[in-house]
Amino acid sequence: MSEKHTPLSSLGEFGLIDHLTNSFETKQQSTIKGIGDDAAVINHEGMCTVLSTDLLIEGVHFDLSFMPLKHLGYKAVIVNLSDIYAMNASPSQITISLAISNRFSVEALDELYAGIKHACDTYGVDLVGGDTTSSSTGLSISVTAVGAAKKKDLVYRNGAKEGDFICVSGELGGAYIGLQLLNREKEVFLENPKMQPKLDEHKYLVGRQLKPEARKDVIAYLRDFDIHPTAMIDVSDGLSSDLMHLCRQADVGCHVYEANVPINNETYNQALEFNMDPITTALSGGEDYELLFTVSPSDESKLNGQEIDITVIGKIVAKEEGLMLQTRANHLHELVAQGWNSFQK
Amino acid sequence: MSEKHTPLSSLGEFGLIDHLTNSFETKQQSTIKGIGDDAAVINHEGMCTVLSTDLLIEGVHFDLSFMPLKHLGYKAVIVNLSDIYAMNASPSQITISLAISNRFSVEALDELYAGIKHACDTYGVDLVGGDTTSSSTGLSISVTAVGAAKKKDLVYRNGAKEGDFICVSGELGGAYIGLQLLNREKEVFLENPKMQPKLDEHKYLVGRQLKPEARKDVIAYLRDFDIHPTAMIDVSDGLSSDLMHLCRQADVGCHVYEANVPINNETYNQALEFNMDPITTALSGGEDYELLFTVSPSDESKLNGQEIDITVIGKIVAKEEGLMLQTRANHLHELVAQGWNSFQK
Repeated sequence: MSEKHTPLSSLGEFGLIDHLTNSFETKQQSTIKGIGDDAAVINHEGMCTVLSTDLLIEGVHFDLSFMPLKHLGYKAVIVNLSDIYAMNASPSQITISLAISNRFSVEALDELYAGIKHACDTYGVDLVGGDTTSSSTGLSISVTAVGAAKKKDLVYRNGAKEGDFICVSGELGGAYIGLQLLNREKEVFLENPKMQPKLDEHKYLVGRQLKPEARKDVIAYLRDFDIHPTAMIDVSDGLSSDLMHLCRQADVGCHVYEANVPINNETYNQALEFNMDPITTALSGGEDYELLFTVSPSDESKLNGQEIDITVIGKIVAKEEGLMLQTRANHLHELVAQGWNSFQK
Repeated sequence: MSEKHTPLSSLGEFGLIDHLTNSFETKQQSTIKGIGDDAAVINHEGMCTVLSTDLLIEGVHFDLSFMPLKHLGYKAVIVNLSDIYAMNASPSQITISLAISNRFSVEALDELYAGIKHACDTYGVDLVGGDTTSSSTGLSISVTAVGAAKKKDLVYRNGAKEGDFICVSGELGGAYIGLQLLNREKEVFLENPKMQPKLDEHKYLVGRQLKPEARKDVIAYLRDFDIHPTAMIDVSDGLSSDLMHLCRQADVGCHVYEANVPINNETYNQALEFNMDPITTALSGGEDYELLFTVSPSDESKLNGQEIDITVIGKIVAKEEGLMLQTRANHLHELVAQGWNSFQK
């Protein structure tokens, strides 16, 4: 970050928006009007518009003492794009609203927007609007993502059927363990500010927390191999919690096989070092932004032998069988949602 | 408000969303999927999707010591619908994201959502999603509104042409004077809590601040009388500031006639009582959510003799003539934007 600290008031509200957004180019043909009017205009010509929104609050969703602003900007966009992909749709536009206190300089916001721009460029989406206002306390970021899909391609949360296979992309629990590492280093630093953080050896885990990706590639893969999931959700609250949403909405149960739940070795070992059960970490961790979906038996074979990190972790069963985890020792335990409950913190 | 104070944690995040939104019914045919999935789905069949978003922060945009939560919910929606109407489009869906601290009870949020629902019902829009999270400090509300319009009907900010007439709906300055009244009563109350607020005699002014409306009727009128504005914006920052946007984007100047600027008698008299210049109040007040638009000379005659509160307040002139206010005494003064600058407060 540059050492300049230009006060926000030197630009004014509209000058600030111009300053922050003038490097964003329009990439989507559907973007008719972007920033600079009362509203953005998007032309979808018979496609369905898909809309998702998230509000991220300093001290609740992110900690600026270890979250670089550029990563924060990137992640704020990714979280929303992930929701659009989880509908089997393609994101095309986003809006960003910020509430910022005077302790932030223009240079700090430039960092934030550099991350936002990097996400827009990587995923090919247009920034088309937003709102910038002052805050008496911390930083708040509201992101809305718009996407499009043909009606027949959309995948909802409520379509899982008995006999369907439960699939998940990537590996689980890493983002949560990464957060524990960052919190540990923060406490060490607060006690002894001369200590340097020991994070280099944990690049994978810290990266899972600070720079997650949305699984655009999984959506492309499903399309290329003509796989139409019966239900889909992104893993933001934790596998158990998100799987419960799918089961509850479809009035079904599930069996998850512990042995199949994908956990990276680093996640596994670091969980043990923290005296945590690795499988609990993977089931309840959250913030992995992987895609959790169900496929009918006729689609399951299309998943075999392909070069993509999709794992079958269980099966949808009758509601009466409950939501169960089948352990390596073949015991059945009830799945517990320990997903992030924002009002009990 | 009821006397119950159910803690938010008793419902959990998803329980809370269900609780707050289960009384909202789908009214729009274009709403394919509302709350309860990763994203909402909207079918616009060849229409353009119009998207607007706002972030409202406690202590910056609203003061809960005199803003009842029901009014706040209503106003938060209105502010966004107004942006959609200002595109000459029809709003159809909204999303609401909240960040709330534990000092709010479920009953308090019920009040907020009663206001949101009232706005949805009055304007015929569907609530289709959002996000609810905790906040360590105040209340933040992010609203995103989606609308639709035929491409040819859309009105942007940049279309004003030399010779066009400048029109505004309703009356200006009332919301600002209403805010001054509320602030005055708050200070009286803080000094002497036994004093009852004297607001009954100021229903109009207080109502302009606490319960603004979006000018759906103006958009309907323009359509019925086949008037296509060349440019349009809603008056949120203040007439001068918003008119400057129109002029800057179209590279033109303007003459506004002081004598024509619509000011309600109550606004006028109360401004004088506050030792404020009524015309300055009307030019710089903001938050009126009236529509400011320009029409070509061929459309101007269609505005005459109609039963709607639209006033011609000036003309678009060449850029070189500047942005001027022509006083009652026929002097020309430069228009000054004293619009709300959130970073200088």
